[in-house]
Amino acid sequence: MSIVVVGSVAFDTVETPSGRVERCVAGAATYFSLAASYFTQVRVIGVVGEDFLPEHEAILTRRGVDTRGLDHVSGKSFFWQGSYMKNLNEAQTLATELNVFQSFTPKIPAEYRDSEYLFLANIDPVLQEEVRRSMPDVRMVCGDTMNYWITGHRENLERVLKGLDALLINDGEAKLLAGDGNLMRAAAKILEMGPKSLVVKHGEYGATAFFSERSFPGLAKSDAHVLTVPFRAPALPLSEVVDPTGAGDSFAGGFFGYLASQGELTPAVFKRAMFYGGVMGSFTVERFGTERLQQLDRDEIEKRFALFRQLSHLD
Amino acid sequence: MSIVVVGSVAFDTVETPSGRVERCVAGAATYFSLAASYFTQVRVIGVVGEDFLPEHEAILTRRGVDTRGLDHVSGKSFFWQGSYMKNLNEAQTLATELNVFQSFTPKIPAEYRDSEYLFLANIDPVLQEEVRRSMPDVRMVCGDTMNYWITGHRENLERVLKGLDALLINDGEAKLLAGDGNLMRAAAKILEMGPKSLVVKHGEYGATAFFSERSFPGLAKSDAHVLTVPFRAPALPLSEVVDPTGAGDSFAGGFFGYLASQGELTPAVFKRAMFYGGVMGSFTVERFGTERLQQLDRDEIEKRFALFRQLSHLD
Repeated sequence: MSIVVVGSVAFDTVETPSGRVERCVAGAATYFSLAASYFTQVRVIGVVGEDFLPEHEAILTRRGVDTRGLDHVSGKSFFWQGSYMKNLNEAQTLATELNVFQSFTPKIPAEYRDSEYLFLANIDPVLQEEVRRSMPDVRMVCGDTMNYWITGHRENLERVLKGLDALLINDGEAKLLAGDGNLMRAAAKILEMGPKSLVVKHGEYGATAFFSERSFPGLAKSDAHVLTVPFRAPALPLSEVVDPTGAGDSFAGGFFGYLASQGELTPAVFKRAMFYGGVMGSFTVERFGTERLQQLDRDEIEKRFALFRQLSHLD
Repeated sequence: MSIVVVGSVAFDTVETPSGRVERCVAGAATYFSLAASYFTQVRVIGVVGEDFLPEHEAILTRRGVDTRGLDHVSGKSFFWQGSYMKNLNEAQTLATELNVFQSFTPKIPAEYRDSEYLFLANIDPVLQEEVRRSMPDVRMVCGDTMNYWITGHRENLERVLKGLDALLINDGEAKLLAGDGNLMRAAAKILEMGPKSLVVKHGEYGATAFFSERSFPGLAKSDAHVLTVPFRAPALPLSEVVDPTGAGDSFAGGFFGYLASQGELTPAVFKRAMFYGGVMGSFTVERFGTERLQQLDRDEIEKRFALFRQLSHLD
């Protein structure tokens, strides 16, 4: 089952206590695509400039990612520069050059139309909605957003939320979106805004899934109790976080890639997807940029999945 | 198997967004004792003043806690006043009156000497060491500490650490003690200071256990791989945290109470103890002070244990 992802493809320059990387291929859609590519076929929609060369695109295509939806236009690609020197948990933005991303108009190739899974990475909710409308037949739509859209583009975002099977955001975003500092209450409020399920990412503490009665349409009434208990997947404690950039997008890629690979959506599949999300995030932060995500194999992924189980399971 | 706990017994006045409680019976040894009392016999060592009346002591004795080690002296009991109005995750101290606690000299009743488990709650490491030395035959000693002792009484604390089977502290204390902001590296450094195992509490995100080759003396060589993977127990997301005071001490009580009740120390027992710690912490914060801890039964505890399993387990 293939996934279409729309989002940013960018160059990042990042410094962390472990070192520095210059203009590596990054952006939410890149991290998502690479992480999901280990589970299913991924098709990307984005925009890049003249500085985005075949060698850059090859990072995606070598992993089998379909890049026919990557629009090459004149100008420079989206560029971000950040530092984690002060705090590994929060990037300090040193430069943001939107460049060609500023006038991004997603174009969906005809070949993408049979995809049944759609991921709306963190972009203008107006564009998220547009892509969503252009693919009315998808079975499942998940999405991300950020504080900028929550505070400044609320009405547009609310329209997107109504159409989501799952919203994936972090703690701070969830509390801001709900206007409530308590995570349980915030989750209940967000689920009332439309998403059938909510995944809140906690960085080094893992992620929590919150369900609603709309989460699993075919669920037997006798199993309805599973909806009332959130599900918490751990993150892997690492002795060196080399570069935290892209951990959340890699989580989303692992999560949604695994879901798409399974076909049917059950609580058990959703929970395993949460673990695969954590697994892919843990690989990403072990190296700079997408370096680690480019060279994995399924066996390493399964071994780490087993590690996540050992980390969190009583037996 | 009975536990001796030495630590503070106090009166707390606490305000939180949920309300306010005046001079309730509190202190680390109180929370610990009540939480552990659902698993095993508990014997407390502490000091109280003339304001500590039979009705206050009854909160402990009704739960079967042996209070013969509670020294009644002239003066007022330890009093603490705190506010969580600004931040539910961190108390703002409004008043600390050590009173009789200032000249606390632990006295161990002869009847306590056959206890095989000892918990050194957060007090001056000189007193922790003294109690530890007075009970040379205990099978297992766990302890807590805080920033004040870590920064100002380091040498004394280091002597205590050498004798601990497990140290239970929070994230910030672990990073301060190790002088390292990375939790995995901090844990490794702390285990080198002496504790056989380390439990780091993350508040609403649960707790993580770190092991060493000394954690489980009888462990088969073929099972040594379990020592290399930390174990993370979740905390229960709650829609209202009424009063976070005592959550960490209740965790310690549930954790050590369960360990003591099991007799043998295996990785499986340790991991279940981590869950019981989280369970008892989750009850404590549902009401003010020790209110909830006074009126539990083992059936409620087992039901919540099952909830913790559902919250974190794939199947």
